[in-house]
Amino acid sequence: MPAPPDSRRHFLRQLSLGAALAAVAGPVPAFSHPQPDPMKPADSGKLGFAIVGLGKFATQQIMPSFKDCKHARITALVSGSPDKAKQLAQEYGVAEKSIYSYDNFDSIKDNPEVDIVYIILPNSMHAEYTIRAAKAGKHVLCEKPMATSVEDCEKMIAACNKAGKKLMIAYRAHYEPFNLDAMDRIRKGELGKIKAITSDHGRPVKPTEDKADSWRVVKKMAGGGSLMDIGIYALNACRYLTGEEPVEVTAQEFSDKSDPRFKEVEDNIHFTLRFPSGVLASCTSSYSYSEVKRGRVFGDKAWLDLDPLSDYYEHNMKIGDDKGKEEPKLKEGNQFAAELDHMAECVRDNKTPKTPGEEGLKDVRYIMAIYEAAKKGKAVKV
Amino acid sequence: MPAPPDSRRHFLRQLSLGAALAAVAGPVPAFSHPQPDPMKPADSGKLGFAIVGLGKFATQQIMPSFKDCKHARITALVSGSPDKAKQLAQEYGVAEKSIYSYDNFDSIKDNPEVDIVYIILPNSMHAEYTIRAAKAGKHVLCEKPMATSVEDCEKMIAACNKAGKKLMIAYRAHYEPFNLDAMDRIRKGELGKIKAITSDHGRPVKPTEDKADSWRVVKKMAGGGSLMDIGIYALNACRYLTGEEPVEVTAQEFSDKSDPRFKEVEDNIHFTLRFPSGVLASCTSSYSYSEVKRGRVFGDKAWLDLDPLSDYYEHNMKIGDDKGKEEPKLKEGNQFAAELDHMAECVRDNKTPKTPGEEGLKDVRYIMAIYEAAKKGKAVKV
Repeated sequence: MPAPPDSRRHFLRQLSLGAALAAVAGPVPAFSHPQPDPMKPADSGKLGFAIVGLGKFATQQIMPSFKDCKHARITALVSGSPDKAKQLAQEYGVAEKSIYSYDNFDSIKDNPEVDIVYIILPNSMHAEYTIRAAKAGKHVLCEKPMATSVEDCEKMIAACNKAGKKLMIAYRAHYEPFNLDAMDRIRKGELGKIKAITSDHGRPVKPTEDKADSWRVVKKMAGGGSLMDIGIYALNACRYLTGEEPVEVTAQEFSDKSDPRFKEVEDNIHFTLRFPSGVLASCTSSYSYSEVKRGRVFGDKAWLDLDPLSDYYEHNMKIGDDKGKEEPKLKEGNQFAAELDHMAECVRDNKTPKTPGEEGLKDVRYIMAIYEAAKKGKAVKV
Repeated sequence: MPAPPDSRRHFLRQLSLGAALAAVAGPVPAFSHPQPDPMKPADSGKLGFAIVGLGKFATQQIMPSFKDCKHARITALVSGSPDKAKQLAQEYGVAEKSIYSYDNFDSIKDNPEVDIVYIILPNSMHAEYTIRAAKAGKHVLCEKPMATSVEDCEKMIAACNKAGKKLMIAYRAHYEPFNLDAMDRIRKGELGKIKAITSDHGRPVKPTEDKADSWRVVKKMAGGGSLMDIGIYALNACRYLTGEEPVEVTAQEFSDKSDPRFKEVEDNIHFTLRFPSGVLASCTSSYSYSEVKRGRVFGDKAWLDLDPLSDYYEHNMKIGDDKGKEEPKLKEGNQFAAELDHMAECVRDNKTPKTPGEEGLKDVRYIMAIYEAAKKGKAVKV
């Protein structure tokens, strides 16, 4: 029976169901297709997640998505607001003893209901809480950008490796059906040879109107501006759509320093990535555009548009050439649920996540190179 | 009576109509609104154009557009193919004596039916024929790119100035209703403050299949690759949409040198322009994309798409923001006819064209800076 190193609880649970059979018949069925047990509550086969940080994204996107999960459930909350945590705990059926503050977070190590810690905190706190979670013996799912420095990313990877825990970065687009379909079409050659990619990501950051944006304009918390928050979707898309890693970047940045939002972090940053195959990818990122989240792949036979490319729930694909264009009808899926389930399955099956810490580290490295290229006015090799 | 310096013929023609009135009542009605004279043929009030170069663009787009002109007519043809010229002369009612070869082109100075010479030759020949036309006492409309070097552009401007002749560059988008409407909306603030522009122009160049493309991959004739041919639409659009001149450029280029088309000229080139207001504009240009000619302006209130932006006869505008998007219904117009009429009116009214030689020179200067930035991997000030 293939017992993942850290699935002791899970292993024991399975033993009671399949041990006898397994002993004579080999591996039990994969946990990605658990057999329903009518005697157990619906959640019993699911891995437990602690949600760290109960901001807008956590409460409005992530937590409601657990209802669509097959392998993941919420078993703990970590927050600096006890009242908010208590109310959400009731709503999501989390035991009151499984509510933690940032101070007593480390005691989560004693909570066997928590398999995975999902860190949804300001960027600069990702490293500290990932490392503390690993030390507490928990697997970690961490929001993007992974951290605000390459060094922090490396420390996070080292801490999880040392603890023998999984580390996954929450690149939701890798679990989103339209993006997955686009990757598939590109790999199959439907667009011909890929020549270029463009992607634009922008939104008006509103630190005074929207609490969720307040820390995003503080360099110490966010690490950077629009590129760290939304430009990273463009950067990451260029990588997963080509399936290549860039070798060189150029960039230009402009931020109106008379706008208090951009005293510390960048507003507009445009960057071009060169890939080994010769593909050039040009992206724009902004904290002052009217909302946009789009991408286009230019092949020598056809182009493919995703507009939006990185929305939460609404996507659109168009494929076109000289002769016309078509709009493949694809089914929307809950990318958050797929992402949470993937993390749970990786823990269960002892597999490396599709978007591990190394994926997050790469983007942070490229982001730093983009900042350097913009600052120096020079192409930077990566 | 305001007689343009070079409209002697035209002046005399007008005298016969309006001299008596003008003598006592001041200026005659503007020539942009000529009074029809039932006794004269329909073309009699129009200025005469010599078409130099009878390639695909000249014969399929420009020549058929004269039928929509109010102030322009074809009165001469210049070609290296006598049979083709003869056939087209018959079709367009051009006198056989008004057919010229490249050898006897200079004798066009003795043809009073020719006011304006429209040069539709390979890029490297623009300078020579503009200068010869100016020396022959003719005004010049010249295709873009204006020339293959800054020096040639300067010589062309000097030659036309010396001869007291108008020089206009055929930037058709400046005469195209959707682009004009976009400029108007931007100037009126409909998109809020402009933050960025992106534009992509690509098409598969086919030198072996399409005779019109054969010289486009020969550096000596074309001066460069996709940027000279189609990327220039993106570059120029960023300038007329912002109404600003760039101050800095960065660029990256990739051309597959194993593809015989790109032995001498570039295929893909991506460039970013910085404008004084802080607007960043990122453009891509390619000779191997499936066809694309689009642009988007990102304002802080809304975005505006033109897709296509630079087609011959079909355009589309979309304006959108967080709340949705709309598609303003604009009327297509013949941009070629508008351009030809504008040139004729400028000659008649002694006005500087909207797109004079200086406009063409600027683009060639920026193109050279883009090539330099791509080559050196450095931001280049312009």
